[in-house]
Amino acid sequence: MALVEFITVLALLQFLYFGMLVSRARNRYGVKAPSMTGNEIFERYVRVQMNTLELLILFLPALWLAIGYVTAWWVGLLGAVYLIGRFVYLRAYVAEPSRRSLGFGLSSMPILALLLIDLIGAVRGLIRG
Amino acid sequence: MALVEFITVLALLQFLYFGMLVSRARNRYGVKAPSMTGNEIFERYVRVQMNTLELLILFLPALWLAIGYVTAWWVGLLGAVYLIGRFVYLRAYVAEPSRRSLGFGLSSMPILALLLIDLIGAVRGLIRG
Amino acid sequence: MALVEFITVLALLQFLYFGMLVSRARNRYGVKAPSMTGNEIFERYVRVQMNTLELLILFLPALWLAIGYVTAWWVGLLGAVYLIGRFVYLRAYVAEPSRRSLGFGLSSMPILALLLIDLIGAVRGLIRG
Repeated sequence: MALVEFITVLALLQFLYFGMLVSRARNRYGVKAPSMTGNEIFERYVRVQMNTLELLILFLPALWLAIGYVTAWWVGLLGAVYLIGRFVYLRAYVAEPSRRSLGFGLSSMPILALLLIDLIGAVRGLIRG
Repeated sequence: MALVEFITVLALLQFLYFGMLVSRARNRYGVKAPSMTGNEIFERYVRVQMNTLELLILFLPALWLAIGYVTAWWVGLLGAVYLIGRFVYLRAYVAEPSRRSLGFGLSSMPILALLLIDLIGAVRGLIRG
Repeated sequence: MALVEFITVLALLQFLYFGMLVSRARNRYGVKAPSMTGNEIFERYVRVQMNTLELLILFLPALWLAIGYVTAWWVGLLGAVYLIGRFVYLRAYVAEPSRRSLGFGLSSMPILALLLIDLIGAVRGLIRG
């Protein structure tokens, strides 16, 4: 459980960090709130944060359910790949949006694996009653 | 519990699917990242995904808390209505945004019911100490 | 536990309320779906909702993990500050976006405190094995 909690906290801190990058970009490129457009680099940071939010709402519940079905080390490995994938995505997207595929794949593959584990586990649980 | 886990996984897979529809629309209508505007149909898919994200962050915790207060079958029924409501919302919004009310209502009513169950349960728990 | 569930439900209801303010602003200022821009006051409500979504995905897991490490009353206090901070943020942002810092700080400080509690707890758990 401690490993899953540790990965959860790291994923939350990573998302917090991405939010700080958006704030910094807003100041640096002079995009006044509430505007979300007007500078391409700022928009890239916004998209990284938004895309991470969209994955985080999948990743966290999928991670928590998976600990009921596979060993903590599997969950830890998938969690680590997700976290690394998000940093790869950040670097690539800010440099050149069209190169974001690798980082996206690296962070969405573990989520798909977790969801598959959870789906099989839940369906088995339903069959057993 | 297996039923709640099953509904959780279905809601996550549905949201993942909505995200894939956004990616497909981005390619199909030639909206280059990081831009989020420029094609009306693409924007409709984006709004369906965003609105689902906004509901999912309410639905999942509300669902998980409710299993402490009502039978799994009630939770299952409300979950099923939410999932169907989201698909109705998707179809209506993409066809004609002004017709999105039915799908929105269908998927937000179960959330309101779950939140009410949770609120009564939590307040009772606080009173009992 | 009842206190944590109560705070969870309040945070969800608050987010639901912020979503309703966005809907109302959309109607009042005539911003047709799927458009997200075109009226400055509408955009302010949208940003309050989005920023709250970004914090909620941090706040809820951080809150739930913290109950394993500190007493419910600490968790309750931090939760209350978060909720008040969000209302301060709403009022300030809608009135004048440049004055949003106090409300943002008030609602993000408890999240940072919860994440720190969770991080220390998880690392200790990992060391103990």
